Amino acid sequence: MSPPQWVKDLKPSGPQGTELIKAEREKSNINVEKLSNFLFTKEVLERQENVLRILQADKVFDKSNNYFDGRVDRFKSSLAKAKRLRQLQVKHNWSEDEFRVANDLISEPTPFGLHETMFLTTLRGQGTPEQHKLFLEPAENYKYIGCYAQTELGHGSNVRGLETTATWNPEDKTFILHSPHLTASKWWIGSLGRTANHAVVMAQLIIAGKPYGPHPFVCQIRDLVTHEPLEGVYVGDIGPKFGYNTMDNGFLLLNHVKIPHINMLAKFSRVDPETNKYVKPSSPSLIYGTLTWVRSTIVLQSGGVLARGVTIATRYASVRRQFQDRDAGPDASGENQVLNYTMVQYRLLPLLAATFALHFTGKAMMGLYQDNQKRMQENAATASDNNRGAGPEELNSGSDLLADLHATSCGLKALGSTTAAEGLEVCRRACGGHGYSSFSGIGTWYADYLPTTTWEGDNYMLTQQVARYLLKSARAVLKGNAPNNDTTRIFTTFLQKQDMGAAHDILGSDSDIVAAFAWRTSFLAFEALKHRDAEKGSWNSLLVDFWRLSTAHSQYLVVKNFYDALQSESLRYELDPETIDVLHKLYRLYALNTLEKEASEFYSSAAVTVRQIQLARTKTVMNLLSEIRPHALRLVDAWAFPDWQLDSSLGRKDGKVYEDMFYRASQLNPLNGLTVDPYADNDNIVKRDETERFRREREWEDEKYKGITPPLPADFKKKINYREKKEDSSENLWV
Amino acid sequence: MSPPQWVKDLKPSGPQGTELIKAEREKSNINVEKLSNFLFTKEVLERQENVLRILQADKVFDKSNNYFDGRVDRFKSSLAKAKRLRQLQVKHNWSEDEFRVANDLISEPTPFGLHETMFLTTLRGQGTPEQHKLFLEPAENYKYIGCYAQTELGHGSNVRGLETTATWNPEDKTFILHSPHLTASKWWIGSLGRTANHAVVMAQLIIAGKPYGPHPFVCQIRDLVTHEPLEGVYVGDIGPKFGYNTMDNGFLLLNHVKIPHINMLAKFSRVDPETNKYVKPSSPSLIYGTLTWVRSTIVLQSGGVLARGVTIATRYASVRRQFQDRDAGPDASGENQVLNYTMVQYRLLPLLAATFALHFTGKAMMGLYQDNQKRMQENAATASDNNRGAGPEELNSGSDLLADLHATSCGLKALGSTTAAEGLEVCRRACGGHGYSSFSGIGTWYADYLPTTTWEGDNYMLTQQVARYLLKSARAVLKGNAPNNDTTRIFTTFLQKQDMGAAHDILGSDSDIVAAFAWRTSFLAFEALKHRDAEKGSWNSLLVDFWRLSTAHSQYLVVKNFYDALQSESLRYELDPETIDVLHKLYRLYALNTLEKEASEFYSSAAVTVRQIQLARTKTVMNLLSEIRPHALRLVDAWAFPDWQLDSSLGRKDGKVYEDMFYRASQLNPLNGLTVDPYADNDNIVKRDETERFRREREWEDEKYKGITPPLPADFKKKINYREKKEDSSENLWV
Repeated sequence: MSPPQWVKDLKPSGPQGTELIKAEREKSNINVEKLSNFLFTKEVLERQENVLRILQADKVFDKSNNYFDGRVDRFKSSLAKAKRLRQLQVKHNWSEDEFRVANDLISEPTPFGLHETMFLTTLRGQGTPEQHKLFLEPAENYKYIGCYAQTELGHGSNVRGLETTATWNPEDKTFILHSPHLTASKWWIGSLGRTANHAVVMAQLIIAGKPYGPHPFVCQIRDLVTHEPLEGVYVGDIGPKFGYNTMDNGFLLLNHVKIPHINMLAKFSRVDPETNKYVKPSSPSLIYGTLTWVRSTIVLQSGGVLARGVTIATRYASVRRQFQDRDAGPDASGENQVLNYTMVQYRLLPLLAATFALHFTGKAMMGLYQDNQKRMQENAATASDNNRGAGPEELNSGSDLLADLHATSCGLKALGSTTAAEGLEVCRRACGGHGYSSFSGIGTWYADYLPTTTWEGDNYMLTQQVARYLLKSARAVLKGNAPNNDTTRIFTTFLQKQDMGAAHDILGSDSDIVAAFAWRTSFLAFEALKHRDAEKGSWNSLLVDFWRLSTAHSQYLVVKNFYDALQSESLRYELDPETIDVLHKLYRLYALNTLEKEASEFYSSAAVTVRQIQLARTKTVMNLLSEIRPHALRLVDAWAFPDWQLDSSLGRKDGKVYEDMFYRASQLNPLNGLTVDPYADNDNIVKRDETERFRREREWEDEKYKGITPPLPADFKKKINYREKKEDSSENLWV
Repeated sequence: MSPPQWVKDLKPSGPQGTELIKAEREKSNINVEKLSNFLFTKEVLERQENVLRILQADKVFDKSNNYFDGRVDRFKSSLAKAKRLRQLQVKHNWSEDEFRVANDLISEPTPFGLHETMFLTTLRGQGTPEQHKLFLEPAENYKYIGCYAQTELGHGSNVRGLETTATWNPEDKTFILHSPHLTASKWWIGSLGRTANHAVVMAQLIIAGKPYGPHPFVCQIRDLVTHEPLEGVYVGDIGPKFGYNTMDNGFLLLNHVKIPHINMLAKFSRVDPETNKYVKPSSPSLIYGTLTWVRSTIVLQSGGVLARGVTIATRYASVRRQFQDRDAGPDASGENQVLNYTMVQYRLLPLLAATFALHFTGKAMMGLYQDNQKRMQENAATASDNNRGAGPEELNSGSDLLADLHATSCGLKALGSTTAAEGLEVCRRACGGHGYSSFSGIGTWYADYLPTTTWEGDNYMLTQQVARYLLKSARAVLKGNAPNNDTTRIFTTFLQKQDMGAAHDILGSDSDIVAAFAWRTSFLAFEALKHRDAEKGSWNSLLVDFWRLSTAHSQYLVVKNFYDALQSESLRYELDPETIDVLHKLYRLYALNTLEKEASEFYSSAAVTVRQIQLARTKTVMNLLSEIRPHALRLVDAWAFPDWQLDSSLGRKDGKVYEDMFYRASQLNPLNGLTVDPYADNDNIVKRDETERFRREREWEDEKYKGITPPLPADFKKKINYREKKEDSSENLWV
């Protein structure tokens, strides 16, 4: 498949991408290394480098087929990666952090994903010491491969509506797990489809005909030797999805499957086998803590998720040139760098600002979570025992901090993941036509990330939790019995100044911007409270208001966290004044761009004046764009994504965009192994099929293209008889 | 792979989807058939039914592998479909309309796509009679399979920047086509990658060292017998994309390829072979007419594109139930239908309204285009001959209608395709978790549609064309020398009333809503004009303002066209008062929801008051949602999509959502043919591989599931020895 010499001799027309991107970097004095260290710490970056070196050297992690393989091949190679990761974890004695870094660098969900997160976490957190010995130990040694089976075909967010039953059988001290309807089929369960041999099944506990709500049960589903489903188990993969196709999300139906008493995870509640009575949970707030942790993690990651897209789009916009400047006159030579267009800046740079805003917010959120965990563990011994089956709201009466943390994590999870997901698509389109190519590296990443907006609480559903908390806080403030926290403080300030009106100097004062966001949130909260309490509006009729309120509150938190981060001492210690100045500009851009997009709420709450918004829109934001623009490339460099992680032609750090696109298309693309018969008067489709050869071989070893993709290990190139391999049903992917 | 009897015996928990969707349909008296006929005409709907019958009977068009196949298989089966379509076209003597309907029902781009559109169109429109004989005839008979090669690796929208050259060679009266750089490689060219044997290549014409701009040349690229690339041609597929993967978008490099004089398409301009002189084009406005036609078609289709997603999401929201109503009290039985939630209504129903708005706008746009074509053809003889190389702007001086049409088509193309693309993603998310499954039927459709926002003029780029036209109109109005058209009329009205201020009764009067949109557009136009002419702002500094202006203007046109359609006589003749009333509500919902989202521009232009917007937001829109809600299902039914076209579990007309999901996952999904070895301590991945068997066979013939998917032809089920077939390199896909 090697191209003729005349093709090998071609290079892009000048100026070369390498020159353009070098010139672009020279426009700014930001010290990229210092900024990276400030964002992530030196230790974390070195860890990333070490792990990267190990992964790149291993042929199992070669990425060059990723964009070409179909579902079955992608799943197989992802399982191979998951296994090798486990082997490396043992070999190098990787910490949890190192293991997570390795997964981040691979950047695809693997079939062990749910085993390593939800299965192990649930066993650890909800199992007794005896159950740890029985289930957790083999799971940690990868003898049991598990998953967490909660969602059902007919039941998503509403856990209490689950149909699967676990009926206590007093005669032989067992539970019978059963799926009474088709809609009771477990669905979307990661790692279940083909990989797991065990599942934690969430099922309605029934004792003597009485239901006690959903509880977790460990259930073996496949034979440990043959890996075939056990009797009474109907299990499989749910089929292809918009993304996430390296994962075998599965379905599971159970037909009166009997499991022993010990298989009900019993740390918090259990069935007493002697009395056949239900023993209610102690300290259920610790369970809800897990959900909060998962949401906090999503917030923490959202900045980095978005930053991948922004990095790719910004680098490509530095290399790509299109049209001449309309005002440049007839003598202008060459086309204009796309990053120079204000319309492109207006689409990309607020997202660049958002990556930093979300990063600082994620760190603050995680700090809040850890503080709370510490406090809760201290209080755990004295915790009320009175909370059987209670939801977070009821629990909160006992813990204002937990209530605040719960609401904050819900709102920020919704805002952060929506911002990241929708921002990635903006980045993809900002790359023009080439953004649509898989080689852009944005599409797959975006598609794989999208479920984050739905899982761990649908982003619209979650806003109800936030609104409920804010209404409660507002009521408490009006009654004068509110706890002293940030939310009640901004509500109190609003009530005090409401009649005088606000006079926020959003164009002159950074702290006034925070105050304007606080004002708008407070206004919306008391408006919603009026609709609900005074006007007796139905909950359902207010959902749109609640969504607006939650979004406003979360935007306030992001702005506030960004502002607070800029006041930190470590900032002034670690960074030079120029970099700090640019970060302040990013802060203002994020805040004022958000304010402008939500302008009508800021007007109608009288947080700012119409004139201020108009100025922000037409002058301040446009000025910030042009001031930030020279630093854009170095700012994305500071996110420190290795090329290997991005796997993007457009986002190459060295600017060799077109060489990389051409190499992948012509040398890696298996469809080019297919020669068709194009004539409609016969049904024959294929003249010659060498797609398999393409899939496995690369012939173009031209010096110029060395280093475009990671070199393949030598033995990968040896000729393989693919047909013979196809015959081998116990095929080893990588021999 | 047939499941055990206990699985076959399961059905969804009650109430069944069939019952729920039936009950939902009974909530409205809208006559679906009459509304469908009004929207599309009876003739068109009958044509669709006839073509559908033919397609469904043909095993080549079986869709059941579509969501599972990888790129190579999808491409092969799509080529098979393209060939069969051509055969059916000949056999049934299909009109162009019937052929288009068949493609719409198949709903995937086929490898003949660009042959059938751009290649034939360009040959027809730009070839001389002699060239028609030489190129068009064999192309129409599918001897030549062609494509239209314009875009290059380094050059997207900017056609004048193309690098490929066509150098006139006076000695032997030939052209030399050549790609001087890697960035000159043709890229994204549909049907080029594997299928075409000819291309229309857009190349810079060079005569005696002087460039004359891009011109079209016919170039054979592959051998007509072997289908191998010809000497000097390096051609292939550009690789996988976010969507559109049944199409072989290709690249093409040419190394001094010599073609005869006759291969330059010469209807408009040519090289005189005697004098070796360039002959400039006559009536180039007809060329620009083609671009306008393509954009008008995109506008016309955008409503239907979006309606697919809205149909699926609305039907699923009628079947899906989740949580109990929070105010319903403890006695409420069962979960609440998702369509009852105001947050879901707020996301879906404005999009439902948008489908109708875009439909009427598309029809109006196409009418405008056809009027203009008629007028232009009448004027063609007298057309100025003075326009060599001129862009649309310059041409417009000679034709105000063309200028208006050009701007309108640019703006509406951008607004319509953005609304459709982004709306589809909203629909997908409104389906919750299952929206992410390929079986939702939205993801693939969305991904295939996305490039529409980029091609035929990037949606952001196009807004400059609109702004340029509006600025010019505004200048003319100020000078008093404006032509009399709708744009200049609304500008004039604005200038007359500007000082008094507007008093638009948007909550009480439908025509005042139109006036408010006109007012805001006019305000933005004169603001932009001030920035450009008085304040001498650079073009680049105003791009964001131009984008806002263009969006405002296009929204005005959509609102106006919807309003006008509701005043038509045929409406009152064909529809009953209840349906007409619902259409009026959809109009108000579309307009007021748009107004609310763009509220700050309406405030700051003083088109409406803050109080009005607040009322629209909190009362009017919410009331409209609840009034339209009972009719939602029948309204989407009126779009008349056959189930076979939608290919969606969630969007089934009969509500059998869960049965369909389960059937596809368990019975069609080839990944379930793969039994893996899950243990990390060995590298073996596969224990048993029966994925091919899954791909080709379906064993579950349970009565209950009959009709869930179109029945397979009998001979499709016979056992095939796949391994033997793999050996046959001239494999016929369908034997």
